[in-house]
Amino acid sequence: MEYLPDDKLHEECGVFGIYAPYPRQVAHDIYCGLTALQHRGQESAGISVSDTRGPMGNIATVKGMGLVSEVFDKAGINGLTGNIGVGHVRYSTTGGSLPENAQPIAMNYIKGCLALVHNGNIINAAGLKEEQMYRGQAHYTTSDSEVLAYEIISERVRSDSIEEAVKRAALKLKGGYAVIIMSPRKLVAIRDPYGIKPLALGEKDGAFILASESSAIRSAGGKLIRDVLPGEVVTVTSEGIESDRSLCGKKEAHCIFEYIYFARSDSVIDGIEVRKARFMAGQALARHDRVSADIVCGVPDSGLIAAEGYAAASGIPFNIAFHKNSYIGRSFIKPTDEERRLAVHMKLNVLDSVVRGKTIVLIDDSIVRGNTMRQLIEMLRASGATGVHVRISSPPFLYPCYYGTDVPSKGQLIASEHSTDEVRERIGADSLAYLRPEDLGEMAPGLSLCSACFDNDYPVL
Amino acid sequence: MEYLPDDKLHEECGVFGIYAPYPRQVAHDIYCGLTALQHRGQESAGISVSDTRGPMGNIATVKGMGLVSEVFDKAGINGLTGNIGVGHVRYSTTGGSLPENAQPIAMNYIKGCLALVHNGNIINAAGLKEEQMYRGQAHYTTSDSEVLAYEIISERVRSDSIEEAVKRAALKLKGGYAVIIMSPRKLVAIRDPYGIKPLALGEKDGAFILASESSAIRSAGGKLIRDVLPGEVVTVTSEGIESDRSLCGKKEAHCIFEYIYFARSDSVIDGIEVRKARFMAGQALARHDRVSADIVCGVPDSGLIAAEGYAAASGIPFNIAFHKNSYIGRSFIKPTDEERRLAVHMKLNVLDSVVRGKTIVLIDDSIVRGNTMRQLIEMLRASGATGVHVRISSPPFLYPCYYGTDVPSKGQLIASEHSTDEVRERIGADSLAYLRPEDLGEMAPGLSLCSACFDNDYPVL
Amino acid sequence: MEYLPDDKLHEECGVFGIYAPYPRQVAHDIYCGLTALQHRGQESAGISVSDTRGPMGNIATVKGMGLVSEVFDKAGINGLTGNIGVGHVRYSTTGGSLPENAQPIAMNYIKGCLALVHNGNIINAAGLKEEQMYRGQAHYTTSDSEVLAYEIISERVRSDSIEEAVKRAALKLKGGYAVIIMSPRKLVAIRDPYGIKPLALGEKDGAFILASESSAIRSAGGKLIRDVLPGEVVTVTSEGIESDRSLCGKKEAHCIFEYIYFARSDSVIDGIEVRKARFMAGQALARHDRVSADIVCGVPDSGLIAAEGYAAASGIPFNIAFHKNSYIGRSFIKPTDEERRLAVHMKLNVLDSVVRGKTIVLIDDSIVRGNTMRQLIEMLRASGATGVHVRISSPPFLYPCYYGTDVPSKGQLIASEHSTDEVRERIGADSLAYLRPEDLGEMAPGLSLCSACFDNDYPVL
Amino acid sequence: MEYLPDDKLHEECGVFGIYAPYPRQVAHDIYCGLTALQHRGQESAGISVSDTRGPMGNIATVKGMGLVSEVFDKAGINGLTGNIGVGHVRYSTTGGSLPENAQPIAMNYIKGCLALVHNGNIINAAGLKEEQMYRGQAHYTTSDSEVLAYEIISERVRSDSIEEAVKRAALKLKGGYAVIIMSPRKLVAIRDPYGIKPLALGEKDGAFILASESSAIRSAGGKLIRDVLPGEVVTVTSEGIESDRSLCGKKEAHCIFEYIYFARSDSVIDGIEVRKARFMAGQALARHDRVSADIVCGVPDSGLIAAEGYAAASGIPFNIAFHKNSYIGRSFIKPTDEERRLAVHMKLNVLDSVVRGKTIVLIDDSIVRGNTMRQLIEMLRASGATGVHVRISSPPFLYPCYYGTDVPSKGQLIASEHSTDEVRERIGADSLAYLRPEDLGEMAPGLSLCSACFDNDYPVL
Repeated sequence: MEYLPDDKLHEECGVFGIYAPYPRQVAHDIYCGLTALQHRGQESAGISVSDTRGPMGNIATVKGMGLVSEVFDKAGINGLTGNIGVGHVRYSTTGGSLPENAQPIAMNYIKGCLALVHNGNIINAAGLKEEQMYRGQAHYTTSDSEVLAYEIISERVRSDSIEEAVKRAALKLKGGYAVIIMSPRKLVAIRDPYGIKPLALGEKDGAFILASESSAIRSAGGKLIRDVLPGEVVTVTSEGIESDRSLCGKKEAHCIFEYIYFARSDSVIDGIEVRKARFMAGQALARHDRVSADIVCGVPDSGLIAAEGYAAASGIPFNIAFHKNSYIGRSFIKPTDEERRLAVHMKLNVLDSVVRGKTIVLIDDSIVRGNTMRQLIEMLRASGATGVHVRISSPPFLYPCYYGTDVPSKGQLIASEHSTDEVRERIGADSLAYLRPEDLGEMAPGLSLCSACFDNDYPVL
Repeated sequence: MEYLPDDKLHEECGVFGIYAPYPRQVAHDIYCGLTALQHRGQESAGISVSDTRGPMGNIATVKGMGLVSEVFDKAGINGLTGNIGVGHVRYSTTGGSLPENAQPIAMNYIKGCLALVHNGNIINAAGLKEEQMYRGQAHYTTSDSEVLAYEIISERVRSDSIEEAVKRAALKLKGGYAVIIMSPRKLVAIRDPYGIKPLALGEKDGAFILASESSAIRSAGGKLIRDVLPGEVVTVTSEGIESDRSLCGKKEAHCIFEYIYFARSDSVIDGIEVRKARFMAGQALARHDRVSADIVCGVPDSGLIAAEGYAAASGIPFNIAFHKNSYIGRSFIKPTDEERRLAVHMKLNVLDSVVRGKTIVLIDDSIVRGNTMRQLIEMLRASGATGVHVRISSPPFLYPCYYGTDVPSKGQLIASEHSTDEVRERIGADSLAYLRPEDLGEMAPGLSLCSACFDNDYPVL
Repeated sequence: MEYLPDDKLHEECGVFGIYAPYPRQVAHDIYCGLTALQHRGQESAGISVSDTRGPMGNIATVKGMGLVSEVFDKAGINGLTGNIGVGHVRYSTTGGSLPENAQPIAMNYIKGCLALVHNGNIINAAGLKEEQMYRGQAHYTTSDSEVLAYEIISERVRSDSIEEAVKRAALKLKGGYAVIIMSPRKLVAIRDPYGIKPLALGEKDGAFILASESSAIRSAGGKLIRDVLPGEVVTVTSEGIESDRSLCGKKEAHCIFEYIYFARSDSVIDGIEVRKARFMAGQALARHDRVSADIVCGVPDSGLIAAEGYAAASGIPFNIAFHKNSYIGRSFIKPTDEERRLAVHMKLNVLDSVVRGKTIVLIDDSIVRGNTMRQLIEMLRASGATGVHVRISSPPFLYPCYYGTDVPSKGQLIASEHSTDEVRERIGADSLAYLRPEDLGEMAPGLSLCSACFDNDYPVL
Repeated sequence: MEYLPDDKLHEECGVFGIYAPYPRQVAHDIYCGLTALQHRGQESAGISVSDTRGPMGNIATVKGMGLVSEVFDKAGINGLTGNIGVGHVRYSTTGGSLPENAQPIAMNYIKGCLALVHNGNIINAAGLKEEQMYRGQAHYTTSDSEVLAYEIISERVRSDSIEEAVKRAALKLKGGYAVIIMSPRKLVAIRDPYGIKPLALGEKDGAFILASESSAIRSAGGKLIRDVLPGEVVTVTSEGIESDRSLCGKKEAHCIFEYIYFARSDSVIDGIEVRKARFMAGQALARHDRVSADIVCGVPDSGLIAAEGYAAASGIPFNIAFHKNSYIGRSFIKPTDEERRLAVHMKLNVLDSVVRGKTIVLIDDSIVRGNTMRQLIEMLRASGATGVHVRISSPPFLYPCYYGTDVPSKGQLIASEHSTDEVRERIGADSLAYLRPEDLGEMAPGLSLCSACFDNDYPVL
């Protein structure tokens, strides 16, 4: 949830779609929804709506680089009329920060036009793209979302409906994905058969909403109905909702990192409250821990809830130990090493009275490179902390993700290159412990999870 | 050459390409060339250059809405390295003012990537587009240029080279066009077999240049070598220039309106100096005219040279009668009828001392709707002119253009709906005469012309 | 600390100054400091630095409307060289949102030039302004800061130094203020004799820093030395620091609202840690409270620490009950009543698992209009809270502030117009209690406070 | 009238004011008027209008860097209501390109508020400024316009009206100036007693207009009434116009350069049509010239009319020899020497057919540094001209201007440092001749002129 280069993993996207079966300017709802999903991607934002006046086949699109509030001003939103729409926020992987890659992808094709938004990663995109190119299909972007769009329109010719084409296309796709496609008359959504990526269905004033997280439905003023099922194709028309579950039934593998870090703590994903999952992780951490300390603190914002859980289970009091400055913009001045150090100071400051003379259990949700953690520990000690015991509410991060998470190269994963004790020394902690892999399941009881980044067990390759 | 809604026809585009067989930042040359071609299109501008660092298949593109000087700032141009490049300025037809339609069109396809710039119109684009869409080729724009690009990449699969694909594609195209395509290693240009649209070849510091007009080559500091021949495919590589003339040999039909109005007066097109052509048109006008007047004046800028010619042939002295304000931007305030009237006043003011007490021959290159002319005559009379005889250095504009000129609907063509005497009365002139169609040829001696807009004789349909 | 129209009071400004007795581009330090002070004002930002190349008497100024990160890009900051500088962030009162009012105020006057930044309010500004205008001094702004600047330069003629002029001017000023003035060779700061407004002195790499809050010194990489004393004039030159305390000795009256809400929780003001003050207020609240509840929650961000204190004193567990979205920009779309409701939803969402089936003590630092609180309570109940007991960590807000805080008109102060029970009913709480006025002192033991907004006892009028 | 660094002198400003004695949004009229005055200054633009809602004492101001069309968009203009207003365009002298210096200058002072626009230069501004500063009047700009404003408000205290204060202030001012001042209820204008700077009075739809040039009145849809007299104070109120001529009667000294270059050719200044003056200068040049040549050409735009006059008097035919590109923006890419050369090519191209094989008389209005002329002659020869005889329609420029014209330092004035023959050699002409000083008077028969830049005879110092 950070603006600055930091030690966190990054989700690549958030998607939002809405169908109002009556005149309604849904662009306003999408704006609210995307703002609520902004933590999933801050590089670009875009909205497409049905627009019979639109020269591009009845779909009008506005997209651009930057935050939702930067891409859309009042005039821009008000110009987007129409009762059906999709929206997207995007975080880019290294090297792919291209205006061309902003979504929605809006295309004219033989059956009319569509706009598509996508969260996730298609593992076999390269192969599909080559086949597409042999068929003469040009690519204007470097994204796998365009590959996905082409698979759908290619199937559309031999399908009776867009939703059938989506299903046929899905048979060829490997990976984790949540996709929403709009035509000028329909909204179609699909979630990958493993349920790797989240997708929720909601309702507001008689309109149906699809969104990466339930919190976006709620922030837009709506109510969560249920999650789209792994493999389910949901179609919204003026007649209401249709569900095609013929692709369902695979072994599920829900991304554990949504619970650990990506999702907003107020979201409910696949029946599990994210806040509760994080609290449970903190509790599980404490259960096997025998450290003696005065207070438990969390690294804002992501470590706070696990810290609450740890405190509840350990009996050590929970305290907020950092002030976080939320005004740090993207135009930071000198990204030199010295200033990167300063950047942490600008974002987080220690509340001295909390930590002075105290031994602290410091909880964070994960360690990727370890740089920020080292600095925070220094800051705590400078403020008078007498001991800092770091506890991570997930296991060591060891393996790459192929489903759409931006992971640094292996050499930059501190846990992959160093033993736990070496990591402890590098970050300057008095002790360091992780959540035990076997306790991961406690975060999401009854749910089948993908935890490949911890255990190398990939559901689909 | 105007900014405001006016009575002129509009060219749709200008193209520019350059290949330097050595390290050179050609984006600067393209910037100069596009600035020189700005009169051909003010809606959008774009540049693509070879860029091995580029994530989009080694071609980097910057494009946007507005003038060249608005789309590119210093930083933007300096970021575009590379020794091969193409550029484009675009004027949009009604309803097509879309950011998506800005060029160059940059695509990844099975053989790599290309960027394409296009001036002209493909008459059979709709049919080709439908075929393309049946093949699964999606369209991101509403332009025929994308149709053209798809024809080329579709042919590329069964061709040995991009230039062969361009030639094969050309066999399917009907219309007038000048196209420049760049790959990361080549520059390929083609001119339609009728030579409807202009395309010149030049040289600067060992680099080869292709441009819609010779004036752009000159403004960029280069020299005109020759015109690309109708139907010729020119390929520039590190080895130099290759010419494929196997499509040449059709009956030529060079657009007469380039000489009348579109091209800069300092350009040379197909061996004819544009300034000379306009001067000759003025002379031809005078030859059959018996009006008695004190002075000859031209409507700036396009009517000035014909007025010089008329003056030379008639012996009536030539005088500049209008001051033109070149600072009128696009953000004019109230486009109401009253303000549209004011707009002419803001752009052109009469030099009273020139016209006071004088009978004037007023020359313009063409009349489309007649609104501006009516106002100018009112202004001249208000400044004391005792008579205004309007002479138009082209025949009455009667028929639409299918080759890329933005023509108003027939009902708005004043000469199509009204007799010459009715037109005279509407614009308030004392007399009105046009260039005789049979004299058109004097503008471009020895050249085979397309004058379909005057005589309904279309070279290709 | 909010972006949207809300129920909070607003501080009007933050000031920052730095003097490096060696070549150093202090604009970078000021940028960091202002970012840390952004919560004190989001309307405009500005920086002045010494610049011998500057045409305006050796001081160069950049200022504009918006956040620090919006007003200053990298190029803008890098263009501001110089080793002495001041900066300002401003929140505007209703009606005064003028570009002209952005600070620093940079003036040329008889002794050279100066730039001034000011936090606070001069009560007798109107009278002084009239005197100034009688003397022929024109005003370019509507701010009392310009009045202040004119008093200083008026005194400068009969003073030996700028610091003497500052002191002389101060004798005429009534109100609360913290002011930093730079000449091209000096930095002079003054704090009002009552110490109403805060001003801290720090050090970084041999440079002296003055700032509204110690957290800004720390975020800029420096260390707090001490607070500037009430009435003290501090002068920084290449020789070091000089202190003139001849105006000191008045009865002090430090603004209690800095501790309650304005200041960052990581700041230390007049020896009191702000976080600790808020924690103590929470403790004091609890001490006289007999409510029975399951959990204590705070309204983010300002109520969180008091909630921690309440929890510690009451033994009721503290929990984070809201997710806060920090990506809500200023360009929110439709500021209608319905959307204003939505705005709270977009900013704060309830963490259901925390509150479901629970009776809650909900802590906030203050209630101004009561609108947000009513909505939060609705949201908590909708999420399953069985009881909501509101506790405010300050007394009822009843009287206006004359020292620079933006207070709504009396009719909008809910506590001023309604009894506590009426307020309780309007916000929909099960019970409502405030901090007792007699307990205010516990927040800042040993400090003489201004709590006029609660008790109508103004230190200076 | 140029955008690029060039060889021309620069006027520093254009002013416009309007008073409509009925509800009318005069900002639109001012926008039109300033656009017509854009040639007098392209650095900044601004408009002030009466606005009872305005927080700054009933005057609302918008100003900024750039062209009129860049500073004001539709929304900006529409936000400026009010029936009284003034506007300004500004060209800056070297080093003074400061946002602070944009006009109107809007001030609050003891009697209310005013906005002031100024063209010209106050010679004794430095002395007055020092006196003002001694009185405690701070300066926010480096311009003499602020000095002027302070003189007026200083006199206002002891005057019965703003117009009386203006007149009193004028008694202290030395220099050339045309000033318009608005209060929320009046419009007052003054022209310096020598009439150095122009100021015209006009009328449109019952509203009175004041403007630097009559062409601005006409472009805004109005009619010229007369020139403001040298020394006249004109006051416009709801009662109509009042004229105070008590300062009139000095020996007049109208700036000759308005006729030579600054003013638009369609303006009438002090009864003399500018176009006619330029035509006469060309005639006078020819009268003493015995050169034998084929054609006469002018350097666009300023040399064209003098060329017409030369042609008329000499019998040598006049021809337009250059195409001028009016699309060259301010963001030119590389201002290196090589690119500066290119810049001339981008702006002006030779029409080859006009000059090929011809001996040319090339007319320009003045030579300042000589760089552009050298290049143009090279270009003409490259296009086949067999001889180039340069004739300048003004005498050699030898002395600085103290009245508001931006003149390069003496060392850069080619005529000041070199003999006519040396200049001829440097620019590469076959011959070179200037207008004889004794013929200057022919441009403006019966008018008393300031030609100090040619003859060192300054009307006021």
